[in-house]
Amino acid sequence: MQLICEAYQIFKTAGFTTEEMAEIFEEWNRGDLESYLIQITSKIFTIRDKETGEPIVELILDRAGQKGTGRWTVMSSAENAVVISTINAAVEARILSALRDQRLVASKVFEGPTPKIDMPKDELVAKVRDALYASKIVSYTQGLDLIKKVGEVHHWNLNLGSIARIWRGGCIIRARFLNRITEAYERDADLTNLMLDPFFTEILNRSQASWREIVALGVTQGIPVPAFSASLSYYDSYRSARLPANLLQAQRDFFGAHTYERLDKAEGEFFHTDWPEVIE
Amino acid sequence: MQLICEAYQIFKTAGFTTEEMAEIFEEWNRGDLESYLIQITSKIFTIRDKETGEPIVELILDRAGQKGTGRWTVMSSAENAVVISTINAAVEARILSALRDQRLVASKVFEGPTPKIDMPKDELVAKVRDALYASKIVSYTQGLDLIKKVGEVHHWNLNLGSIARIWRGGCIIRARFLNRITEAYERDADLTNLMLDPFFTEILNRSQASWREIVALGVTQGIPVPAFSASLSYYDSYRSARLPANLLQAQRDFFGAHTYERLDKAEGEFFHTDWPEVIE
Repeated sequence: MQLICEAYQIFKTAGFTTEEMAEIFEEWNRGDLESYLIQITSKIFTIRDKETGEPIVELILDRAGQKGTGRWTVMSSAENAVVISTINAAVEARILSALRDQRLVASKVFEGPTPKIDMPKDELVAKVRDALYASKIVSYTQGLDLIKKVGEVHHWNLNLGSIARIWRGGCIIRARFLNRITEAYERDADLTNLMLDPFFTEILNRSQASWREIVALGVTQGIPVPAFSASLSYYDSYRSARLPANLLQAQRDFFGAHTYERLDKAEGEFFHTDWPEVIE
Repeated sequence: MQLICEAYQIFKTAGFTTEEMAEIFEEWNRGDLESYLIQITSKIFTIRDKETGEPIVELILDRAGQKGTGRWTVMSSAENAVVISTINAAVEARILSALRDQRLVASKVFEGPTPKIDMPKDELVAKVRDALYASKIVSYTQGLDLIKKVGEVHHWNLNLGSIARIWRGGCIIRARFLNRITEAYERDADLTNLMLDPFFTEILNRSQASWREIVALGVTQGIPVPAFSASLSYYDSYRSARLPANLLQAQRDFFGAHTYERLDKAEGEFFHTDWPEVIE
């Protein structure tokens, strides 16, 4: 839902009408993105307020509620040391939306660019679609990773492919996409990470350039895209053979003698450096 | 620590030597960024391995440990509905760093650009400094927001300015910066959000353009900058008079009749639309 909202925010900034957005989401619903949420989003854009004649969505207050499921998921992920940064960003976005009074004050205090999107319409729609699809894959990857980890901890012997199939049966995340997840776990029941299934790998590799362009667009134009960008950060971190955590380990060894392992030594062998004194 | 690591990763990608990085951090430590962590980072870059003669930091395995404090903080923030996205990104970065075996596999599977940074050195250093400083302000803003909220829940009557002063007294986050935080709460003990203190507002407004450039650089070049970008997303969301949560509320009313408020009606008055049926 948050990912769809970010796509909407970009389209709105580009000056698209609700009619145009209804069409875009309707078209997306005929393709790989087919899902209940995409479908109802296209319907939402078609409805006008009876009283004012305005598109109803534009009259709704931008302050989202939540019933707690998102927050419980975040707590469970922290407990189990699983990264669910996309879901996290979505939960955070709802919390920030609820701080509307603060936002109205802050909007007059903090500077940013005047957003301007120059990209041709068809190109923008295609790239936002790629960003949405790739981010959605990351979101499911992380959610399934959490379910897998918790299942292992409790010896639940979960079948992730079946779980995806159950979701098809009427819950709000029902989507064509879930069949692909079921198929992925049928190919490999022990799949380490959903992104590593060839079907999803291919989409990610095909989408990553557009995904970057859309996140960079949001960042440079001051349009918040927290879930798109958290998803891309996950992708880029996960595919990094080398992350800068070596410096972090050096810092931890410096101030707390936590020791570190070395690239050129056996794993499980720990080293400590006698770091210089610091004078303050 | 994670923010410093992201700065390091960018500098390394730009081809800076450890000697150059030692100088940069030493210089930063003479200015507003003066802190224990910046200081030890500059020292770390000066140390070479006795055995190989290589800079020790480059020999350290990029797999970070954690003792749990970060995760407890995330759990507390979820429990109390406070956004600490920068700290969150840092905790997630450590978890991802620990999945090194998976990352080595993924690095051969997933595509991204071949990173290339063309910016003149002085310009890059100045912009990364702005990104680091602004992100650090966001990080403290969020952390103090959590402390404030938990303090309110437990009626602890906390003095946030004094807390910042206590941190000066020897813990690893000791920094010149903390004096500014103490001063901010002396000016206004009930400050809603640290960023709203004029001292910090001015820095953020001055830094936001460079901050965007550095995050966009990471995003387009495939260098993961999860904490820089989570911080910027927070800034941009917080300063948004209008977020796309109106669409989210429409979705929630569509599938769950959660109702919504309207911009043009009184707060606390809730509406429901009879949305069209969807055929599947």
